[in-house]
Amino acid sequence: MKIGLIGLGRMGGNIARRLMRDGHQTVVYDNNADARAALAKDGGEAVESLEGLVKALPSPKVVWVMLPAGEITENTIQTLSGLLGKDDIIIDGGNTFYKDDARRAEELAAKGQHYVDVGTSGGVWGLDRGYCMMIGGDKPTVDYLDPIFKTLAPGAGDIPRTEGREGRDPRVENGYMHAGPAGAGHFVKMIHNGIEYGMMQSFAEGFDILKNRNGTQLPERERYSLDMADIAEVWRRGSVVSSWLLDLTASALAKGPELDNYSGFVNDSGEGRWTVNAAIEEAVPAEVLTSALFARFRSRQDHTYAERLLSAMRMGFGGHIEGRGTPPKEGEHS
Amino acid sequence: MKIGLIGLGRMGGNIARRLMRDGHQTVVYDNNADARAALAKDGGEAVESLEGLVKALPSPKVVWVMLPAGEITENTIQTLSGLLGKDDIIIDGGNTFYKDDARRAEELAAKGQHYVDVGTSGGVWGLDRGYCMMIGGDKPTVDYLDPIFKTLAPGAGDIPRTEGREGRDPRVENGYMHAGPAGAGHFVKMIHNGIEYGMMQSFAEGFDILKNRNGTQLPERERYSLDMADIAEVWRRGSVVSSWLLDLTASALAKGPELDNYSGFVNDSGEGRWTVNAAIEEAVPAEVLTSALFARFRSRQDHTYAERLLSAMRMGFGGHIEGRGTPPKEGEHS
Amino acid sequence: MKIGLIGLGRMGGNIARRLMRDGHQTVVYDNNADARAALAKDGGEAVESLEGLVKALPSPKVVWVMLPAGEITENTIQTLSGLLGKDDIIIDGGNTFYKDDARRAEELAAKGQHYVDVGTSGGVWGLDRGYCMMIGGDKPTVDYLDPIFKTLAPGAGDIPRTEGREGRDPRVENGYMHAGPAGAGHFVKMIHNGIEYGMMQSFAEGFDILKNRNGTQLPERERYSLDMADIAEVWRRGSVVSSWLLDLTASALAKGPELDNYSGFVNDSGEGRWTVNAAIEEAVPAEVLTSALFARFRSRQDHTYAERLLSAMRMGFGGHIEGRGTPPKEGEHS
Amino acid sequence: MKIGLIGLGRMGGNIARRLMRDGHQTVVYDNNADARAALAKDGGEAVESLEGLVKALPSPKVVWVMLPAGEITENTIQTLSGLLGKDDIIIDGGNTFYKDDARRAEELAAKGQHYVDVGTSGGVWGLDRGYCMMIGGDKPTVDYLDPIFKTLAPGAGDIPRTEGREGRDPRVENGYMHAGPAGAGHFVKMIHNGIEYGMMQSFAEGFDILKNRNGTQLPERERYSLDMADIAEVWRRGSVVSSWLLDLTASALAKGPELDNYSGFVNDSGEGRWTVNAAIEEAVPAEVLTSALFARFRSRQDHTYAERLLSAMRMGFGGHIEGRGTPPKEGEHS
Repeated sequence: MKIGLIGLGRMGGNIARRLMRDGHQTVVYDNNADARAALAKDGGEAVESLEGLVKALPSPKVVWVMLPAGEITENTIQTLSGLLGKDDIIIDGGNTFYKDDARRAEELAAKGQHYVDVGTSGGVWGLDRGYCMMIGGDKPTVDYLDPIFKTLAPGAGDIPRTEGREGRDPRVENGYMHAGPAGAGHFVKMIHNGIEYGMMQSFAEGFDILKNRNGTQLPERERYSLDMADIAEVWRRGSVVSSWLLDLTASALAKGPELDNYSGFVNDSGEGRWTVNAAIEEAVPAEVLTSALFARFRSRQDHTYAERLLSAMRMGFGGHIEGRGTPPKEGEHS
Repeated sequence: MKIGLIGLGRMGGNIARRLMRDGHQTVVYDNNADARAALAKDGGEAVESLEGLVKALPSPKVVWVMLPAGEITENTIQTLSGLLGKDDIIIDGGNTFYKDDARRAEELAAKGQHYVDVGTSGGVWGLDRGYCMMIGGDKPTVDYLDPIFKTLAPGAGDIPRTEGREGRDPRVENGYMHAGPAGAGHFVKMIHNGIEYGMMQSFAEGFDILKNRNGTQLPERERYSLDMADIAEVWRRGSVVSSWLLDLTASALAKGPELDNYSGFVNDSGEGRWTVNAAIEEAVPAEVLTSALFARFRSRQDHTYAERLLSAMRMGFGGHIEGRGTPPKEGEHS
Repeated sequence: MKIGLIGLGRMGGNIARRLMRDGHQTVVYDNNADARAALAKDGGEAVESLEGLVKALPSPKVVWVMLPAGEITENTIQTLSGLLGKDDIIIDGGNTFYKDDARRAEELAAKGQHYVDVGTSGGVWGLDRGYCMMIGGDKPTVDYLDPIFKTLAPGAGDIPRTEGREGRDPRVENGYMHAGPAGAGHFVKMIHNGIEYGMMQSFAEGFDILKNRNGTQLPERERYSLDMADIAEVWRRGSVVSSWLLDLTASALAKGPELDNYSGFVNDSGEGRWTVNAAIEEAVPAEVLTSALFARFRSRQDHTYAERLLSAMRMGFGGHIEGRGTPPKEGEHS
Repeated sequence: MKIGLIGLGRMGGNIARRLMRDGHQTVVYDNNADARAALAKDGGEAVESLEGLVKALPSPKVVWVMLPAGEITENTIQTLSGLLGKDDIIIDGGNTFYKDDARRAEELAAKGQHYVDVGTSGGVWGLDRGYCMMIGGDKPTVDYLDPIFKTLAPGAGDIPRTEGREGRDPRVENGYMHAGPAGAGHFVKMIHNGIEYGMMQSFAEGFDILKNRNGTQLPERERYSLDMADIAEVWRRGSVVSSWLLDLTASALAKGPELDNYSGFVNDSGEGRWTVNAAIEEAVPAEVLTSALFARFRSRQDHTYAERLLSAMRMGFGGHIEGRGTPPKEGEHS
């Protein structure tokens, strides 16, 4: 299939490369000339404008947009939709908010165009391992694009089959699924990231407790100086918590168990936030996913206003003056 | 009544003073000579040793220990018990762990001595307002000590009566209660402090959200520069959140709404921790009380090991380099 | 002042009554004829339509809308705005989402009309105690409405003054504040309710731990049968957690400490949810306010899908079959 | 090596079998005769008492105790220690509390005996996959037992090696580690389980939000009927959340995506609780691990006392009557 690709960053560039490796043709655009040149070198047909990209594609034209979610993606898709005709297809492969997908699909449908949202997981590893994809859109369009998805997906590989899946959609075992109408792909990807936050925080807290087990405030015979790297490694081998995130943890800890080259200033993207918002809309309790998000918020601050207010109240009822050099007096009112 | 008092700090000294104001006699001891002298000036019979204190009291001897919970209190009570005789009474008015009370009461009972634990709330305000007291111990002993408790308690004052309390224990309306056997007083006081943590954190988070409502990342018409001091004040007047903690908050904010003279480094005493442990023993979910405790733990650190591990994992799967100067790229995988 | 009132339910009716008691005139409308008749009996000028209400008011016309937030309020305000002229004023006293306020104020301003949002706290007690009000809108309009707010507010009463407020806005001490532009009133009220959730949950968890202290799984000497009603009562008297919510708790517990006439099926209104969403928008950690919301979500379900999935996983790795009759085997893998 | 095994349940029996498969000899005891007979059939030397077991072993005698943690294990180890002599070794392979290990090791050391604690993960799958083991004890003893551990461990298998581990302890890559002195093995295993709780709860919440995405309270175009089984399956293939727990989830969902044969009544073993207690001792915030524990507590109750108290307070300030048939009125005070 010949497909247009807009946005040739880390993710978009590798998607184009993986498509070409498997025999697809790509027309590629990025507003950065170096990114265009890099892809051209790898076999892409680089163009210098959206107009040029649209012109270079056969009908029905298929364009994969792989840009940062938000304004850039929105504007690009609006412009693109103006350049495209009936039956053409826009794929948003970024991390778009699912409500924007649902709205856009309606807007494009009014012009006879098709909108497909693809949530992709796999990060920097996708070029070689393939991308796990969750897809939203109308069935005929998603079916039409199957050759693209098949190429990008990791395939069944040597991952053991799950019993009881006989008769179920075989695409899923190859690493991609048609989740539902427009927005459903990004919705499922969003929850994936929400879960990812929770799992990461689970490991983070657990290792924090392990690390602090040699504190001098503890009874001497209950103090241990544990080897973080070995613990992560041993858990990879037959334990219940074995997972890709644990593999990454083991790898980071093997390189330096103090992690002192990491800032601990932890960013979050929209998906963790939207996950909590979705839980609230549905009245589903989601303590763990929310706490994992809040831990990241807290990591990006020094002292919060909240904490200063706690100090102020403690001064109010107990006359406590607090500071780094003031250990809590045992038994003191707090 | 003539009563011995050990520990003449902020709390113990004022308890002695409030007792003397109401006609009780006190024999006072502290290992700090200045503290002893201060109380002597206010009418206490200062002694220079535990032996001296015991000697100065009539039988049955009553001694109120008001020391930091933990080793000091434990040792003092053990020594004291050795000096006292049958039928004598030790009161622990500190913030002792209720399991220690239960154990000590058994130990003293074996010698025919009585142990009473008193959880007191009221902080630096107690001298004038009176102390709210939760008492554990055997009934005859608690009844015998009633004149002491009556004096220390705030009394009914002008706090409106609760309907439906006719026929119930009248001591409670005067601000003290016999909660149950030894340990029950400190147990109830411990839960009081656990709730206090939760309420404080509720205010802290709410004001933090109010304070940050002028962030430039928000849509302009949804940004407000709110007056923290006025908000706290207005809520004191007829709102559902009116409370003594809100009074203290209003007072602190009136003095300086930025709270920049407070460190935000928030200590915790044992009670918040024991509350969570008690919840776990009982299999009672206690999300809010626990979160309030953890917020204090977090306030006392820069970056946690947990947060550095999150950064390390993010580097592992997404190649993210994080730092204070690196705002999250929207749409970037996280 | 002569003012129109739309919505004569529990809140709206009493607001009309409190205004009339202080000499204001009211033109009242509700689509329920009985509600209209009840107010007419108490001195209101009852009308049978919005048109009738608008006609009965002098210019500039002032209309207070007191309806359930959401569609009804939105539609009523849109209709009303069509009937009103330049310089007229609409007050939304309901629990409207602050972003709707900000939008409406812009829409009305385009017609030269004024929009004021009033968050009110005080519940069924407001008629007698007065309403604590947080007001959003432009300064001239809020100032113009001052006689209305002054009447509705509780006034300074006998609540002790906060030190350090000299020179500050005196309205605040009377129980109402001009918080900022349109939306600011409801924003502050929303956070008030968020805090209220957190405080309520703090008490709820604390009393749950107290109540379960007689569990047979606990060591015998650490088991207590505590009197819930007395504990709530004693804390009202000098303790750090004294508050109006504690007064209500003491009152409910005095009537029946088992609380078995209450369902435990706990509703939530929009404000708790919006508070969490606002925290997320601002990247402010709000663990406690969020947990309090989720506890309500959970209270309205039997078993969640989440919990069944936990059971399924446990069956997967450990062969555990779970059920009400299956106590956890100590030491069993979980 | 010839080794004694006490406790032939699911775990203990399979440990014996795995040892025998690899050429070790076992002397086996269980107070259930059928369990003894089953092992005897598989090659174990079944004995009818602890005395018999001790007698059947060569010196230094090595006994692996695999019983439910708590009283049974404690009593068995005390009895056993009385029967054993200097230089003999007791291994506790159950889920013992690490503080009990530390104490026991001191008690045994006083008699010249050695105590080794082994935390094992692997559940019902261990017989074939091998057991991931975390070991505490003195170095010479742990080294002496190496043949046993080597047999029980899964071995390196085809799990990719972690870069940067050159020169590190090679046992770890075979799935077992010497974590530290007595107690360290169970401590690391305890934290493993704490993390497991957090990961399980992460998946549980995520799938709950996915499942409830077809709620009628949601805008129609944002409602999706998602296929739980396919989502779990697709994530196994290249996504960031791929893990053994996800494999189990996919398996359970393939068999029945409604999970209606699971109770949702979720037990917890001691480790989740001890993990939180350890975090508190160390003042390490552990929101996620704690929330995961509390979710299990809540799952085992109908309505909590806490929830009834919330209903009671809501009745107090707002006159709300709540019940299953009473949906929250929008805009109503709460």
